[in-house]
Amino acid sequence: MTHQTRIEARIAEWSQKLPQGNLYAPMAYLMGLPAKRVRPMLVLMACELFGGRAEDALDEALGIELFHNFTLMHDDIMDAAPLRRGHATVHEKWDVNTAILSGDAMLVKAYQLMGKHPQVAAIFSKHALAVCEGQQLDMEYERREQVSVSEYRAMIRLKTAMLLAGSLQIGACLAGAGAVDQERIAAFGEHLGLAFQLRDDLLDAFGDPAATGKQQGGDLRAGKKTFLLIRGLELGEAHGRRELQDELAKPGEGRDVPRMLKVLEELGVRTEAERTVQQEEEWAMNALGEVSAPADRKKPLRQLVTLLMGRTR
Amino acid sequence: MTHQTRIEARIAEWSQKLPQGNLYAPMAYLMGLPAKRVRPMLVLMACELFGGRAEDALDEALGIELFHNFTLMHDDIMDAAPLRRGHATVHEKWDVNTAILSGDAMLVKAYQLMGKHPQVAAIFSKHALAVCEGQQLDMEYERREQVSVSEYRAMIRLKTAMLLAGSLQIGACLAGAGAVDQERIAAFGEHLGLAFQLRDDLLDAFGDPAATGKQQGGDLRAGKKTFLLIRGLELGEAHGRRELQDELAKPGEGRDVPRMLKVLEELGVRTEAERTVQQEEEWAMNALGEVSAPADRKKPLRQLVTLLMGRTR
Repeated sequence: MTHQTRIEARIAEWSQKLPQGNLYAPMAYLMGLPAKRVRPMLVLMACELFGGRAEDALDEALGIELFHNFTLMHDDIMDAAPLRRGHATVHEKWDVNTAILSGDAMLVKAYQLMGKHPQVAAIFSKHALAVCEGQQLDMEYERREQVSVSEYRAMIRLKTAMLLAGSLQIGACLAGAGAVDQERIAAFGEHLGLAFQLRDDLLDAFGDPAATGKQQGGDLRAGKKTFLLIRGLELGEAHGRRELQDELAKPGEGRDVPRMLKVLEELGVRTEAERTVQQEEEWAMNALGEVSAPADRKKPLRQLVTLLMGRTR
Repeated sequence: MTHQTRIEARIAEWSQKLPQGNLYAPMAYLMGLPAKRVRPMLVLMACELFGGRAEDALDEALGIELFHNFTLMHDDIMDAAPLRRGHATVHEKWDVNTAILSGDAMLVKAYQLMGKHPQVAAIFSKHALAVCEGQQLDMEYERREQVSVSEYRAMIRLKTAMLLAGSLQIGACLAGAGAVDQERIAAFGEHLGLAFQLRDDLLDAFGDPAATGKQQGGDLRAGKKTFLLIRGLELGEAHGRRELQDELAKPGEGRDVPRMLKVLEELGVRTEAERTVQQEEEWAMNALGEVSAPADRKKPLRQLVTLLMGRTR
């Protein structure tokens, strides 16, 4: 059985056992939407890396996916997002209060699965708090005029990378890995997470819409402060080019996205972003290399990085 | 040092150590408002009842109070309440998104304090989920035309009584009490919690405004479905009296509260509610009597019940 199959089966089993009612139905709905299940995969892979059995980490893998979906449920309220994974968000399908309360209960359910081992629960809490801090910065930066590249990096580290790191560390902890190896696999996860988010930003701007399934340059049109826009504005100012500012001054639907993409290319922002992604992926590979585990057991995680490096969506 | 002093000192110490920023400031604000600290008191009292030391249960006592305040922060959003304990609610002082996110982080912080012992974490999660289920029913009943007395009782059991029960059980568990004694002290807490909420309903209607600090009959004016109104409507229908329905048909500010109170008296609802409170208090005392602990160690909890029985606010 593949990890993917195991995880989907565990989620389906869990959903079926939920009590009736509007507190639990939104959980089953959101968990049932098609998803990559990256975080639970990382829990199982890290467990096996250190000689544990994936079956023994399935509860925690489910717990991490529940937590991730809880953050989506609440983030979607905060962003007033109508769609998630191509379907209505919980606060749209039900209402805001239901989404707040069901999310709260979902976090409790996640802890019920993470609480068997105090060490695991402590790792989980640390990374869960980081996600909240990252979301807080994300909301703050949206209201701010200027955000620096290092601030953006710190924000996506907290909001995205730390949970990948936490997933891996939990799997490692369950397999009985020592403190140093836990740190190394967490570092691997952080670099992987940063690379993952930056590649998402790149794909949004320069990806093939046929592959991504998204409108090209959606982030730019929305004026979202990703690495590309932040760095583009910085370099534009340094080189006396005001095209990006001019476009941002227009209302979203009036922005000339191809022009913005051209400027980002000319300023070297695309190349710089691609190099940064490669750098993070290299650091991830190095951290994995330092982990004390047989080389053949590292293969699946190496393959995962290679897969993510070449992804087009 | 009294338990109250211990708890306030622990809260103050915790608040001072919080990081800067809008994720944590609302936690310190809400935790700093004057409050009775009933739940942390129960943790410490139950711990001592079974021969434990209050100092060893302080983290969990703080954790329970954090959880309670997290529920207030989110409930106030759901109820669109402007005031809490006489001060602006978090979503009023900051904004709704900050109150959602800060509440989420507060629940994680609560778990950081509850997670040292897996047994304690499991008791906590069970009761935390009950609180969410109770809030869900509360919201549902507000939209429903008819709610029965037994439905109301089930709702306040989940929303209020279960957390008192959980606080006591956690204190007992920390002191090493056996499963049977844990159940007994939890049963004590459930009855105490039901009595507590019903007395709140009674005080809101028939209490002395000078003592309660609240407008007399605020719940009735708002048409809130408490025990009194639910039972009043039931008995009114049985006796062919329509005064309550007539008053409820008016807009809130036009309702004749003294007339409603008079009807509740005449229908015997007040007496019935008072008897129900006494019954719950008696059951609480019986449950406490069955606990295997020396009589002198039960004294503080008996005194607490007596205190709550005679309270006027």
